[in-house]
Amino acid sequence: MGTSHQDTSLSSQLAVAGHVDLSTFDSRATTGFDGSKAEGKAALAGIGDELDDLQERLFANGRSGASSTRVLLVLQGMDTSGKGGIVRHVAGLADPQGLAITSFKRPTPEELEHDFLWRVEKALPGPGMIGIFDRSHYEDVLIGRVRRLVGEKEIARRYAAINDFEQAFTASGGVIVKCFLHITADDQKDRLAARLDDPTKYWKYNPADLDERQLWDDYQQAYAIAIQRCSTESAPWHVVPSGRKWYRNWAVATLLLEHLRALDLAWPDPDFDVEAEKARLATM
Amino acid sequence: MGTSHQDTSLSSQLAVAGHVDLSTFDSRATTGFDGSKAEGKAALAGIGDELDDLQERLFANGRSGASSTRVLLVLQGMDTSGKGGIVRHVAGLADPQGLAITSFKRPTPEELEHDFLWRVEKALPGPGMIGIFDRSHYEDVLIGRVRRLVGEKEIARRYAAINDFEQAFTASGGVIVKCFLHITADDQKDRLAARLDDPTKYWKYNPADLDERQLWDDYQQAYAIAIQRCSTESAPWHVVPSGRKWYRNWAVATLLLEHLRALDLAWPDPDFDVEAEKARLATM
Repeated sequence: MGTSHQDTSLSSQLAVAGHVDLSTFDSRATTGFDGSKAEGKAALAGIGDELDDLQERLFANGRSGASSTRVLLVLQGMDTSGKGGIVRHVAGLADPQGLAITSFKRPTPEELEHDFLWRVEKALPGPGMIGIFDRSHYEDVLIGRVRRLVGEKEIARRYAAINDFEQAFTASGGVIVKCFLHITADDQKDRLAARLDDPTKYWKYNPADLDERQLWDDYQQAYAIAIQRCSTESAPWHVVPSGRKWYRNWAVATLLLEHLRALDLAWPDPDFDVEAEKARLATM
Repeated sequence: MGTSHQDTSLSSQLAVAGHVDLSTFDSRATTGFDGSKAEGKAALAGIGDELDDLQERLFANGRSGASSTRVLLVLQGMDTSGKGGIVRHVAGLADPQGLAITSFKRPTPEELEHDFLWRVEKALPGPGMIGIFDRSHYEDVLIGRVRRLVGEKEIARRYAAINDFEQAFTASGGVIVKCFLHITADDQKDRLAARLDDPTKYWKYNPADLDERQLWDDYQQAYAIAIQRCSTESAPWHVVPSGRKWYRNWAVATLLLEHLRALDLAWPDPDFDVEAEKARLATM
């Protein structure tokens, strides 16, 4: 989306380049949105129709073989930052038929036998689809680094491998929208406490989340490095302030919308003779 | 859902048992709904919140390992009957994270090397998920019969195999909701003509659809037999009048809702000590 002074897109406002220090970002900012929570929720609903239309064009082009364009939304963030909420409230605006959602868990023994990108490659969206990664290949340089699951040299290799991988994806007609859902340790504390106060939310709580929370600073550090090393021109990282859920949802929906708009998708031409088909149908 | 006189559920009204003659069904009926098109659309939107809540309970139970309950919605019908529309407008009411949608196409060479249920088994929803089959194992007794892709003996074997397969699914905690989207040949003609009149719909049109249309009566016959042979107590077929799109959407959403309600799902109990976790969080 470029970063010229004329570019007022949300993407250009949230994309990061160069050195990253996450402590300087305000998790409760509402960058690019001038309005209240109620207005933010209304704006999100208002995005639905255009998103639906653009997604159908994307899907139509994929289905008709007219184009290999496909979109991948990568969601990363600490527990409670809202990856699931984005799937529900943003992806929920789209036709589920055109979505391919992958929630990456701890790698299976089979997955561990392969390079870390093996399972990711298999989950990439096909032509016309919007893929959503709830966690992603970035876990392999985040938890991989924090928990020292692999050595430093391997971690260093992975940043470059990720950049090559994403470059190949975009070069072949893929569009990648990477969102880091930024919250503070206090935001997380409030949200975990809310889960522990509400029996309808117990299922979202996992005691192991607190073990990860203890490593908060290490994770922030690992995120900063990963974002810095892998925010490229064709696949920049966006730091999305996620302390306010309504803003976070609006922002990610808007990023998706901007990238779909930029594709400038026409409806595919028919690969049959329309008049001949009309005549044939009339006789039946 | 039973068929006693007290049962006024939509499921009991649309489920069929015994001899089936599709020509006696009115595609424009609005069984179980007393209202206008605008009221039907509003009623569908009104279903959203409850469907969302029940789906989240189902998902929570699956995620927490508390239950192996899962739901499968099977959609069958002639071209233009609205299988894609159901995915968009009904499944679109739910959280996409909890949906597993499979669109069955012509079998691949690999799939053809296996029994017809092989690929279907692999696509069954896991615990907590709502699976949606856009076409299904029934194609193997529909196009299989009409196009004589296999012999009569094999077709006969398949009805029994399907009943066994569905019985095993329901016996292991699965709930299956089978919907035949019933339209007339005239309904289809109108809809195909509309696609040929609208460049934004060309991509949905395939000249091969007219080849299938020429076999309309054979397909109706094949559907009637399949529905009759495979409408069982644990997995009945519902004939959904689909000449009016708004009614069709409302009816399938209502069938799904009734089946989810019948599960009477509680939120899963925590598998951790809530107070201990609260205390631990407070110190962090």
